Amino acid sequence: MAVLLEFSMTPLGEGESVSQYVARSLDIIEASGLDYRLHAMGTVIEGEWDEVFDVVRRCHEAMSADCDRVTCSIKIDSRKGATGRLTSKVKSVEQKLGRTLKSTEGS
Amino acid sequence: MAVLLEFSMTPLGEGESVSQYVARSLDIIEASGLDYRLHAMGTVIEGEWDEVFDVVRRCHEAMSADCDRVTCSIKIDSRKGATGRLTSKVKSVEQKLGRTLKSTEGS
Amino acid sequence: MAVLLEFSMTPLGEGESVSQYVARSLDIIEASGLDYRLHAMGTVIEGEWDEVFDVVRRCHEAMSADCDRVTCSIKIDSRKGATGRLTSKVKSVEQKLGRTLKSTEGS
Amino acid sequence: MAVLLEFSMTPLGEGESVSQYVARSLDIIEASGLDYRLHAMGTVIEGEWDEVFDVVRRCHEAMSADCDRVTCSIKIDSRKGATGRLTSKVKSVEQKLGRTLKSTEGS
Repeated sequence: MAVLLEFSMTPLGEGESVSQYVARSLDIIEASGLDYRLHAMGTVIEGEWDEVFDVVRRCHEAMSADCDRVTCSIKIDSRKGATGRLTSKVKSVEQKLGRTLKSTEGS
Repeated sequence: MAVLLEFSMTPLGEGESVSQYVARSLDIIEASGLDYRLHAMGTVIEGEWDEVFDVVRRCHEAMSADCDRVTCSIKIDSRKGATGRLTSKVKSVEQKLGRTLKSTEGS
Repeated sequence: MAVLLEFSMTPLGEGESVSQYVARSLDIIEASGLDYRLHAMGTVIEGEWDEVFDVVRRCHEAMSADCDRVTCSIKIDSRKGATGRLTSKVKSVEQKLGRTLKSTEGS
Repeated sequence: MAVLLEFSMTPLGEGESVSQYVARSLDIIEASGLDYRLHAMGTVIEGEWDEVFDVVRRCHEAMSADCDRVTCSIKIDSRKGATGRLTSKVKSVEQKLGRTLKSTEGS
């Protein structure tokens, strides 16, 4: 079953600018081949349970390599028989409103 | 101080399709005039503390009007002297990687 | 309407040990007079919407006083006509199982 | 490396009372043998990365068996060389304040 997983991973104790660590995660996400969208507060990826959690595990390993403390927040949304939800969830809200919104889908 | 606030608000007990309720929140967000980005797992808005939390409070009132139970997750990121972070946080990660990513900023 | 609000607030860039900052938040929570429970990953408080968010706002002000970047995650659970949920939600799960669990309610 | 994992898993579309589903998760958590604490907004467990995520995966399988849509929020806190943090993080805040608090540790 495909799930949507949103996550945000941050080192504590490496200063207040952490984009170089976030970049490492995005490298891993892209290399996974899974569809994803980056936004200002995290990244949403879509895939099978084991696939998406394997990405999170590898991002954690890469960050833990030189960061002693790491925090991560994750949200999961799973729905039977539904795929392509990275796009369709946004479109569904737009359809209800009858107009496009400022979104990950380029509107 | 401007903050980034990401939130996702969902009624429990109104069935598994909830986009008509999410649409109500997006109406309120747009009417606030604050800059925002919708993605598949929530919405990120940027503004002063009181402004962004007032939006969340009004979304909760609108959803509670006909939903007996409502859950909401919120994340805040505040940084002194920083504005325009809805865009700049994504760009900063892209600069570290030297390439554009699939993001809310249309890449 | 009484709501449950769980939150966790952390400074970025103040080192990996942050309990002195968390202590400041607990001081504010206790002084509010609202019922609360601290656990290893955050604090749950119960009160009216404006009351609980005022506590979060004041915790953020206290932390921002000497921390340039602050992150915070919040979860809300609101249910019409329900109070005392700090205790009753745990008890309800225990009743379903027919035994006590390791919990904030001292079991 | 031992990590703290907090999670909360909820079915959408199964009505507004969901404690019977949460009880199923607590059964799985207890059977895992990992140390845990239940509170009003979720459960915190402590263990190796693979152990704690295996618990979450099995809770999701158990809930998905008869729930078409499931949402889950997870938070991770990992710190090198630290164990027993289910208790020590609460105690550390209490030491900073010089008094006991209302917490999962029975104060």
